[in-house]
Amino acid sequence: MSSFPRAVRIVEVGPRDGLQNQRVAVPTATKLAWIERLARAGLREIEATSFVRPDRIPQLADAAEVAAGLPRDPGVLYSALVPNRKGLEGALAAGISRIALFTAASETFCRENIGVGIAESIERFRELLAAAGGTDLWVRAYISTCFGCPYEGKVPAEKVVEVAERVIDLGVDELAVSDTIGVATPADVHRVLDALEAVLPVTRTALHLHDTRGTALANVLAALGRGIATFDAAAGGLGGCPYAPGASGNLATEDLVYLLDGLGIESGVDLVKLIEASLWFEGELGTELPSRVLRAEAATRKRGS
Amino acid sequence: MSSFPRAVRIVEVGPRDGLQNQRVAVPTATKLAWIERLARAGLREIEATSFVRPDRIPQLADAAEVAAGLPRDPGVLYSALVPNRKGLEGALAAGISRIALFTAASETFCRENIGVGIAESIERFRELLAAAGGTDLWVRAYISTCFGCPYEGKVPAEKVVEVAERVIDLGVDELAVSDTIGVATPADVHRVLDALEAVLPVTRTALHLHDTRGTALANVLAALGRGIATFDAAAGGLGGCPYAPGASGNLATEDLVYLLDGLGIESGVDLVKLIEASLWFEGELGTELPSRVLRAEAATRKRGS
Repeated sequence: MSSFPRAVRIVEVGPRDGLQNQRVAVPTATKLAWIERLARAGLREIEATSFVRPDRIPQLADAAEVAAGLPRDPGVLYSALVPNRKGLEGALAAGISRIALFTAASETFCRENIGVGIAESIERFRELLAAAGGTDLWVRAYISTCFGCPYEGKVPAEKVVEVAERVIDLGVDELAVSDTIGVATPADVHRVLDALEAVLPVTRTALHLHDTRGTALANVLAALGRGIATFDAAAGGLGGCPYAPGASGNLATEDLVYLLDGLGIESGVDLVKLIEASLWFEGELGTELPSRVLRAEAATRKRGS
Repeated sequence: MSSFPRAVRIVEVGPRDGLQNQRVAVPTATKLAWIERLARAGLREIEATSFVRPDRIPQLADAAEVAAGLPRDPGVLYSALVPNRKGLEGALAAGISRIALFTAASETFCRENIGVGIAESIERFRELLAAAGGTDLWVRAYISTCFGCPYEGKVPAEKVVEVAERVIDLGVDELAVSDTIGVATPADVHRVLDALEAVLPVTRTALHLHDTRGTALANVLAALGRGIATFDAAAGGLGGCPYAPGASGNLATEDLVYLLDGLGIESGVDLVKLIEASLWFEGELGTELPSRVLRAEAATRKRGS
């Protein structure tokens, strides 16, 4: 463990990746109150929303209102997902200066998800970055399905590298290497990161894990051992498929912070405050969130009362 | 990962540690049909029951019937937990030749759980082993709460070593170092196993993990890296506290096998057959089991249908 980073960045993606699959409509004011609680818990990078077409993801139709209402804390960096030119304009107009773009390592998943193939999605990146030329944007790119695809099965590492190289050439600041369907084990993490090493420095690599099969924290451990120091997570583990209540979604921020605290790795997040934020938010949602640390804490409180 | 063992032993503890906390009464015939399915899935070591006082754990009151009805497959090793002289006699009479004894690294937990302190529990070990002197028993000892105790909090590694040394002196074959309440992170695994190294060879060390906070597989990964090659698990992740539906219990065998398969480590278990066994069993129980791999598979089937 001596090779572990001393501190990590957590990118909180609950308000975007978590909420986009929620069946329950969450009022804008509730989203903002939640984001404020997340920031107060010490989360310093929050992906707040997505400027997508409202008919495609109605849960995030209030992107402009959310962006405009974000608590202005100079210590917190907010970002938004931007799928196209119109989305970029919306984000810029709302004062967003950190954007996230989306592509995939699997052709079928890319088409199913955003309606265009990988090549066209990267061409869009180029146009967006050209359009934003005069601005001081910070840009992250998600590469989805780097480990497995629901349509194509196991994704070869060479495919990930090929997509990554083309994206890096465009000058993005960070790549989020994503296990979109939560199939990776530590062997896959090593396989893909070994292949990426030559084209992508660890300082620009984020790992975006889903905990669908319970392997997310083992994958974090493997990645920490390689010096990876940026991890995405969603408060409460929000982001499970709405049609499969038992299957969980994004790696839960609580579970990640619990692990990091145990390892003595600094994240800046106060786990107690984070749990309070999630307990409050699941009250608003009217549903239990899957984070195991959250459930263990809730169970302890129930027994205690 | 080059230092990982090529193969591991999985000790399936679902029928004992999993069932003892179930609220639903499971008929003996159902338990036996489940155990047969687990054995057919490739589980070669199964802790089948506990010869405890029926008034203490009514769910396992049929220990003698379960032991007598176990499918006689020469490739499968069955064991039973034995708390006292009467339990030992019952186990021996039922043809059990592998027994598990129980103590703890936390005095309060030991008293709360079995009514006597650590010293007295180890004195019982001595009496039991003396009583069984003429037989060819294989003996495992659980040391509960090696990482944390619900009453005393964090447990010092020196305490674990102290208890382990006294147990090893009695000549047991294996120690199950147990994270009874699922609080350990990989740093704790290293801390405790570092301390135990001088008194306990890895070949006689089993790790018994609960996944209460989602860290179990990360802990397995850390332990594999030290050459630990015996892990307890419960099919379906059975064993969650009955009063806290969301909080999970034992490390799920499915999740462990998924990780090991991904790492290319042999366990002998066929994951597909194991999932079938658990889906069948949760149908019998009338409740969903918490294993994430199981839930992901169930969700995939639901979407597919």
